[in-house]
Amino acid sequence: MMKVTKFGGSSLASASQLEKVLHIMREDATRKFMIVSAPGKRFAEDEKVTDLLIELGEAVLAGTDTTGFQTKIMQRYQQIADDLKLTDAIMEEIKAQLEKLLTLDVTSPEAYLDAVKSSGEDNHARLIAAYFNQAGLKAHYVNPLQAGMIVTNEPGNAQILPQSYTKIATLRQLNDIIVIPGFFGYTETGRICTFSRGGSDITGSIIANGVQASLYENFTDVDAIYAANPHIVSQPKEIAALTYREMRELSYAGFSVFHDEALIPAFKAGIPVQVKNTNNPTAPGTTITTKRQAIDTPVVGIASDSGFCGIYIRKYLMNREIGFGRHVLEILEDCQLNFEHMPSGIDELTIILREDQLTEAVKATVLNRLKQELAVDEVKIQHHLALIMVVGEGMNHNVGITAKAATSLANAAINIEMINQGSSEVSIMFGVKEADEKKALQVIYQAFFD
Amino acid sequence: MMKVTKFGGSSLASASQLEKVLHIMREDATRKFMIVSAPGKRFAEDEKVTDLLIELGEAVLAGTDTTGFQTKIMQRYQQIADDLKLTDAIMEEIKAQLEKLLTLDVTSPEAYLDAVKSSGEDNHARLIAAYFNQAGLKAHYVNPLQAGMIVTNEPGNAQILPQSYTKIATLRQLNDIIVIPGFFGYTETGRICTFSRGGSDITGSIIANGVQASLYENFTDVDAIYAANPHIVSQPKEIAALTYREMRELSYAGFSVFHDEALIPAFKAGIPVQVKNTNNPTAPGTTITTKRQAIDTPVVGIASDSGFCGIYIRKYLMNREIGFGRHVLEILEDCQLNFEHMPSGIDELTIILREDQLTEAVKATVLNRLKQELAVDEVKIQHHLALIMVVGEGMNHNVGITAKAATSLANAAINIEMINQGSSEVSIMFGVKEADEKKALQVIYQAFFD
Repeated sequence: MMKVTKFGGSSLASASQLEKVLHIMREDATRKFMIVSAPGKRFAEDEKVTDLLIELGEAVLAGTDTTGFQTKIMQRYQQIADDLKLTDAIMEEIKAQLEKLLTLDVTSPEAYLDAVKSSGEDNHARLIAAYFNQAGLKAHYVNPLQAGMIVTNEPGNAQILPQSYTKIATLRQLNDIIVIPGFFGYTETGRICTFSRGGSDITGSIIANGVQASLYENFTDVDAIYAANPHIVSQPKEIAALTYREMRELSYAGFSVFHDEALIPAFKAGIPVQVKNTNNPTAPGTTITTKRQAIDTPVVGIASDSGFCGIYIRKYLMNREIGFGRHVLEILEDCQLNFEHMPSGIDELTIILREDQLTEAVKATVLNRLKQELAVDEVKIQHHLALIMVVGEGMNHNVGITAKAATSLANAAINIEMINQGSSEVSIMFGVKEADEKKALQVIYQAFFD
Repeated sequence: MMKVTKFGGSSLASASQLEKVLHIMREDATRKFMIVSAPGKRFAEDEKVTDLLIELGEAVLAGTDTTGFQTKIMQRYQQIADDLKLTDAIMEEIKAQLEKLLTLDVTSPEAYLDAVKSSGEDNHARLIAAYFNQAGLKAHYVNPLQAGMIVTNEPGNAQILPQSYTKIATLRQLNDIIVIPGFFGYTETGRICTFSRGGSDITGSIIANGVQASLYENFTDVDAIYAANPHIVSQPKEIAALTYREMRELSYAGFSVFHDEALIPAFKAGIPVQVKNTNNPTAPGTTITTKRQAIDTPVVGIASDSGFCGIYIRKYLMNREIGFGRHVLEILEDCQLNFEHMPSGIDELTIILREDQLTEAVKATVLNRLKQELAVDEVKIQHHLALIMVVGEGMNHNVGITAKAATSLANAAINIEMINQGSSEVSIMFGVKEADEKKALQVIYQAFFD
C-alpha cells in the first residue's frame, strides 16, 4: 500500500496552503511520493510563479532588464519562507538556483525557456522538503534526473522514455517522503525538457506507474469532478466514480480538472486515480478506475465544447463512387486539417472540424479542390457549431438515452444540427449552434440529473 | 401541353389490361407519347415475357433446344392478339422478328442477350400500335433507332448520349400517338443495348426530357407511392406529393415503385412525374416535383433496408493523427468496397457498408491491413444491421423529429445502434439490428402518421 500524491499550484500557493498539505501528508503514512507544482495563484488577480518565470526567460532572451521579475519571483518564495519561519539556508539555495538561470546557454531559446520554467517546480520542491523536515516530517527532495525521468528532446512536449520506469521503480527503496518536482524530465544528453499542458499531473502519473503505487491522488481546489460545468449548470452533481474512458470522453469536450492524457501512464498500470480537494480533504472526491461496478445511472456527465464548423458536401450518387470519401479526406490531409467527425446522408456528407484550423487561405484551397477534383454539386461551410457530449458506460445498449436527450432539446426548441451515435459505446454527441450551447447543456443535464 | 405516358409490364400483360390502357390513352388527347414495357405477369405465378426471352437467349448461346421457349413467347402475344381480335398481319410480323433473333451474331453473348431481351418491348409496341389503330385511335410504332435513342455500348447498363436529345425533340412534329418500346437504345454502331434496372422508366424519362413534355406519367399497378412499405405497415398513407430528393432518399433504402435514377432525365428538365394506377386511373396517384408547396407534415415517408454491417475501429487519439481517416478509407478503396456512412466517436469510428461486398477474403484483408498499417487498438465487425430512413423536406430545422422517432424506438425497447443526422436536410437515419427492422419501421410510422 503506497500512494503517489500530487498537489496543484493553488494547493501550494502560500504558507497557509502548505500547512494544509503538511497535514494531509502527515495523516496518512502511505503517502510516500509527493509531486509538487510551482506556487500558483493565491487570489484571482495573483500571478503564477511559472508565468513570472516565462517573463523572466523572455526578458533574458530579449536582452532586456530582468531584475523586476527576479525580485517578484524571490518575493513569492521569501514570503512563504518567512510565514513558515524557514531557515535562511533554503532561500540561499533558491537564490543561487535562480541566478544560475541567468548564466545558462541560450543558443536554443525553446530549451532555455524550458529550463527557466521548470525551476518553479524544482525550487518549490526544495522548499517544501525543507519545510516538512523542519516540521518533523522526514522528507527528501529528489530531482527528476536522480528519479530517472528520462524524456524525449521535445521542449514543451516531452515524452517519457520506456527505460525510465526501471530506474523509477528503485525509488521504492528510499525511506521517508520523497518530494519530486513535477512538469519536467531530462533528455538523454542531460538537458531539461518540460511536459505539455498538465505537466505535473504527467509526472505524478509516471511515478505512480514506475513505483506501482496503489493509488494516485491528485489534490486540487475542487471537491470532485462535476457532472457538468459548474459555470453553466448551477451546483451540478459530484461524480463519485468515473472510468478512464468516461474521463477521456468528457475531457474531449474541453471539460476536465486535468488533461486526460496525463492519466495514461497510471491507466496503463491500472492504478486508480483519486481527485481530492486540498481545502476540504475529508470530501470523498472522485475516483477514476478502469472498471466501474454498479452503474446506478447510465449517464455520468455531460460536457460541451464550441469552436467547430462543418464542411458540407453534396454530390449525387457519391456513395457509388469508390474512393470519393478517401479523396475528400486526402484534400483535408494535404491542408494538414484534423477532422473530428464525418456524418453523412445520401449524396451528402459533412466534415466536422475545429474552426481555428480553417484560415481563409486553407478554406479557399479546400473549397476549390473539392469543387474541381470531385466535381461536387454543392459545398458550403457551416460555422459556429458546438458539440454536446452525453457520457456514461451505462448507456451502451440502454434504450432511451438518445430519446431523452433529444426530447429535452426539442422541448427547449433547440435544433439538433448533427448527431453522432454509433461508434462510441459510452457517449452520444449532439451538434448544436454555438448560441444554443449553454441552454442545450442545461436542459440535457436537467433531463438526466434533476 | 404534351404528356409522355409510360405503362409497366403488369399494365400490359393481357388483352383486358390493354383495353384499360386504350381507354386511358383515348380519354386524354395530350397523351402523345406512349412508352411500353414487355408483357408482364397476369397472376403471381405467371412468367414475364422478358424472363422467357432470357431463357431463350441462353438456350441459343448454350446450343440447346429453343422451341419450348419460342412457343411460350408466341403464345403470350397470340393470346392477346386473339382476345383483341387483331389481324394476322401483326402476329406474322412478331413471328418474323422472333425468328430473326435465332439468326443474330452471337460472338458477343452480352450484346446478343440484350438484343433478345429488347424484343419483348419492341414486339409489344408493334402489337399495341396495331391494336390502337384497329380500335380507331391513330398510333404509330416508332423504333428507338428512329426515335434517336443513341446510347453507350454498355450491355445491361447503357447510358443515353447527349446528342440523342436533339433528334428526340423532332418527334414533337409527328402526328397521332407515338408508341415507343422502352428499355433499350442503339449504340453509335447501330447495335442494340439495354438500360439497367427500371429500363422502360428510363426511356420514358429520356423521351419526356427530349420532347419537353409537360408531364411524365408512369402507370403501374398501385394507386400511389405509400408512406411506408405496405408489406410491413398495414394500409400505409398514400403520398400525394413528393420532391425528387425525397424520392431519392426513400429509394435509397430499397423502397420505391421504380428505380429513382430513372427519373434523372425528367428531373434535369424539371418535368413533374406522376405515378398512377392503370387499374384505377381516377385515383390521384403521387406527383413528384422539384419543389413542394405547403408542407403539411414534416415527414412524408419512412423506408428501411437491411443487409448492412459495420467495421468498428478503435484507436486512442485517432483524431489527432492527420490522415488516419483517409488511410482507413484507402484500405476500403483498395478492396473496392463502397461505404455508406462513417459515424465516429472519440478514438472510435465505424464504417457502415453493404454486407454482401464483404467476402471472407476481403474481410480478412481489411482487418489485417487495419491492424498492421494503422496499429488500431481494436477492430471488429458488427453484422446484420438495418437502416431506417425517416424522410421529409419539412424536417429540416424542425426540432423534435429525432426526439419523436427515437422515443418511439425506446418505447418499443429497440436499441439504436447508430444515428446519422447532420448532412442530409431531408432525412434522419437510424441503424438497428436486422431483427428489429420491421418493428422499428412500424413504431416510427405510428409516431408520425397515426
